[in-house]
Amino acid sequence: MADYIWGRYPVLEAMRSRRRVHRLLVAQGPRDEGMTQLLDQARRIGVPVETTSRRHLDDLTKGANHQGVLAVTAPRQYAEVDDILARAQERSEDPLIIVLDTIQDVHNLGALIRTAEAVGAHGIIIPEHRAAGLTPAVDKTSAGAVEFLPVARVTNLTRTLDELKKKGVWCIGLEGTAETRFDTANLTGPIALVVGSEEKGIARLVREHCDLLVSVPMRGHIASLNAAVAGSVVLYEIWRQRGWAMPAEAAEAAQS
Amino acid sequence: MADYIWGRYPVLEAMRSRRRVHRLLVAQGPRDEGMTQLLDQARRIGVPVETTSRRHLDDLTKGANHQGVLAVTAPRQYAEVDDILARAQERSEDPLIIVLDTIQDVHNLGALIRTAEAVGAHGIIIPEHRAAGLTPAVDKTSAGAVEFLPVARVTNLTRTLDELKKKGVWCIGLEGTAETRFDTANLTGPIALVVGSEEKGIARLVREHCDLLVSVPMRGHIASLNAAVAGSVVLYEIWRQRGWAMPAEAAEAAQS
Repeated sequence: MADYIWGRYPVLEAMRSRRRVHRLLVAQGPRDEGMTQLLDQARRIGVPVETTSRRHLDDLTKGANHQGVLAVTAPRQYAEVDDILARAQERSEDPLIIVLDTIQDVHNLGALIRTAEAVGAHGIIIPEHRAAGLTPAVDKTSAGAVEFLPVARVTNLTRTLDELKKKGVWCIGLEGTAETRFDTANLTGPIALVVGSEEKGIARLVREHCDLLVSVPMRGHIASLNAAVAGSVVLYEIWRQRGWAMPAEAAEAAQS
Repeated sequence: MADYIWGRYPVLEAMRSRRRVHRLLVAQGPRDEGMTQLLDQARRIGVPVETTSRRHLDDLTKGANHQGVLAVTAPRQYAEVDDILARAQERSEDPLIIVLDTIQDVHNLGALIRTAEAVGAHGIIIPEHRAAGLTPAVDKTSAGAVEFLPVARVTNLTRTLDELKKKGVWCIGLEGTAETRFDTANLTGPIALVVGSEEKGIARLVREHCDLLVSVPMRGHIASLNAAVAGSVVLYEIWRQRGWAMPAEAAEAAQS
């Protein structure tokens, strides 16, 4: 079994990341600059390119907006929670983990993974059931970011939170009604940020296993923010409280 | 011509807002608590309810996730830019306006409008061409927030920015490569925040008419954030720099 990734940006990111791209399928027709760049990259790293009909790509992607290109890749490998913690240790950083409790909208899932990658999070934890999995659509909505972040699937989210807490990770749940405003909380140190679903927020049991609940304030008429937006606002606050620290290599490069 | 709004939350919000709801169409079948609440609200404000088949709703919404309810409403009225400025004045607040330059994804458009409403923005400006309009899908993705915000459509965005500048509004463009990090900019005073499209950012001409460009920093591999996320992070920074000011009525209520 292979996976498909489509859309120019996700395919380009898949080739840049460690994910193994077996081959590209490209639609017949004139090629603009973006497509030429993409094919150059494929040639550079030795990925075979096959030309096919646009209709074939429509079929393979079930009519998605594939932009004329599809990558056939090795199936996605899920990571372990320990891999995520090891990643933080390798970088000599406090762990920053996003825990997604039953987010079902692939747009929200993708947007949040994109922010997580952008602020330097070390990985994502999703429950095995009742949540959007890492389908090809998430590759697209995350603009390829999911290629750069280890994602662990766990069967029991509350048990995972308890294990993280034992390892010194502070579990912070995002909840619209929480009394603590996100920017007044101390968000330094090892953190797992728990983000709930669009409709129901964090499940009660999961919420009870959090060390702290924080809210993003609202002053209008509507009752809640988009889940990816709320999570992203808090992720940026966490990075801000970490002094906008950059990756070690980048920091070294900047110093030299 | 009438507009349709579907989904429980958007329909409920449409009934709560000033938008005129002519009648509701509700799918046959058992009614849970959420639907009962919705029908109570309709009865309270005198909106007629008709029962119909689920398939009829599927047809009217072209297969969208209507959750068994659809509101037939007066067609959307677009506002004028001056209405938006007047709204700020009524509230004795510095204007906060979101200018959306050619955002085409309805999920992003909806999520950003939702944040704008949540932070107390006074209105949205969109270009008449080359952008997602306020379709029923935006009602849904904005969770009904679009009902509470005046939206102005303009034919020439750069001219509108120039007019805003003449009235003392500071036009700030969001651009990934800008040198000024969003949190180091002075974001107090009258502001129009210009957010560009997912793929191309702000158009060159529009960018040249901004007073200042700010960026949301990134430290990972991917090249850009989701447009709604980036815009929302900056909107929250603006509200923060305004001292998390609440609406006057709410502030008075809290004092008494």
